[in-house]
Amino acid sequence: MRTRYFKLTIAYDGTGYGGWQLQPNAATVQGMVEKSLGKLAGRVVRIHGSGRTDAGVHARAQVASCSLTTRHPPFALRRALNASLPEDIHILRVQEVDAKFHARFSAKGKEYRYQVDCGVVADPFLRRYAWHRPRPLDVGAMRKAARLLKGRRDFSALAAKSERSPVRTISKLTITRQGDLLTIAIAADGFLYKMARSIVGALVKVGEGKLTPAQLKELVASKKRTALVETAPARGLFLWRVRY
Amino acid sequence: MRTRYFKLTIAYDGTGYGGWQLQPNAATVQGMVEKSLGKLAGRVVRIHGSGRTDAGVHARAQVASCSLTTRHPPFALRRALNASLPEDIHILRVQEVDAKFHARFSAKGKEYRYQVDCGVVADPFLRRYAWHRPRPLDVGAMRKAARLLKGRRDFSALAAKSERSPVRTISKLTITRQGDLLTIAIAADGFLYKMARSIVGALVKVGEGKLTPAQLKELVASKKRTALVETAPARGLFLWRVRY
Repeated sequence: MRTRYFKLTIAYDGTGYGGWQLQPNAATVQGMVEKSLGKLAGRVVRIHGSGRTDAGVHARAQVASCSLTTRHPPFALRRALNASLPEDIHILRVQEVDAKFHARFSAKGKEYRYQVDCGVVADPFLRRYAWHRPRPLDVGAMRKAARLLKGRRDFSALAAKSERSPVRTISKLTITRQGDLLTIAIAADGFLYKMARSIVGALVKVGEGKLTPAQLKELVASKKRTALVETAPARGLFLWRVRY
Repeated sequence: MRTRYFKLTIAYDGTGYGGWQLQPNAATVQGMVEKSLGKLAGRVVRIHGSGRTDAGVHARAQVASCSLTTRHPPFALRRALNASLPEDIHILRVQEVDAKFHARFSAKGKEYRYQVDCGVVADPFLRRYAWHRPRPLDVGAMRKAARLLKGRRDFSALAAKSERSPVRTISKLTITRQGDLLTIAIAADGFLYKMARSIVGALVKVGEGKLTPAQLKELVASKKRTALVETAPARGLFLWRVRY
């Protein structure tokens, strides 16, 4: 048997996990998938995710890559892996790829989506999947602020730690409302640490009238994070798509 | 202070409860709401639901009635109740009603909705809210069968226990598909025990080609429940609306 290379597309409800990345003292999504692969392979299998997701963050389509010495076709691998994974983590697709494919280094961009529950009373079915903000939001002002954030710029002011290369390009930043549910979609060539949740925190502040779109623009231009920017809670965030 | 009468509209995720109705050895939705009311009133308050929901069944809008000696306006009652209820049970509305209003006896009809996850791989976000049936379903045949069930008839064959008055009128029975999610909506003037889930079990059997629409019609006409009818699992069922 020869070594083959696979791309795994994974959906997970992050509520019960200490995030994507392996940790010694918490169940993690990477850990669960590696355990399931290990059972199949009879040895330790390492996987590489497109990036980490924090504790409590979800994924509609996280991508990971790995090598495996196996005779099984991709659909049989998927079935076997799902059979030993818990109900809150499932492999949506297994595709055989070139040895050069790497889930992180080959990624060209990502999309995150964030759900805000604007109902006066919190929806019990969204308690794990949305941030409840019962005060009325000015969606028009939020959209105006969103337009000011699009494009290529230094996002240091909207990241939770400083990085050497803080310039990213946001290609899409939309806000859609369906009943009491607000969905913020953000696509970029890459995200700084907690950048998606910081953007959501800032946009919600704009929606609540505590920050004007112009002030947010200045804040970003200052390249310095201040207490004005809150990080929105993990439970509303979904890694929606990784682009290759 | 005089005694006032209230109609409570309640949403709950039934996953963690032994159903609606009070039980000695399990947490129930009725029990949680009564506990919350009891804190507010400083005495035991009994509520009457529009009907029971089984363990694991959810509600978008269950209705309960109660009397309360209070000065608080309805919105303040709602806020106080929600503050002491867990995140998976919330009071959507509190309305003051006439002393004659009774959630069960005043009800004119109900609507249930049932979710079937038809994806090849189960959606981790629907694991508590849908029945996973990965085999392809013939939705056309299911719709044909649904039309045969509509109207006024004896539904003994689709109930889990025999009742003295087993005649009900189904006014609506629709099947809609959005991606891999099938939603079956059933409205009737009343439901026999486990009737909604038995209808879903029968329709899914039709969709899988194990029962023809004509056979289902004969089965209902026989007024006898047989092993052909499976009760669909609780987790996909939502009490959607109670009509007064």
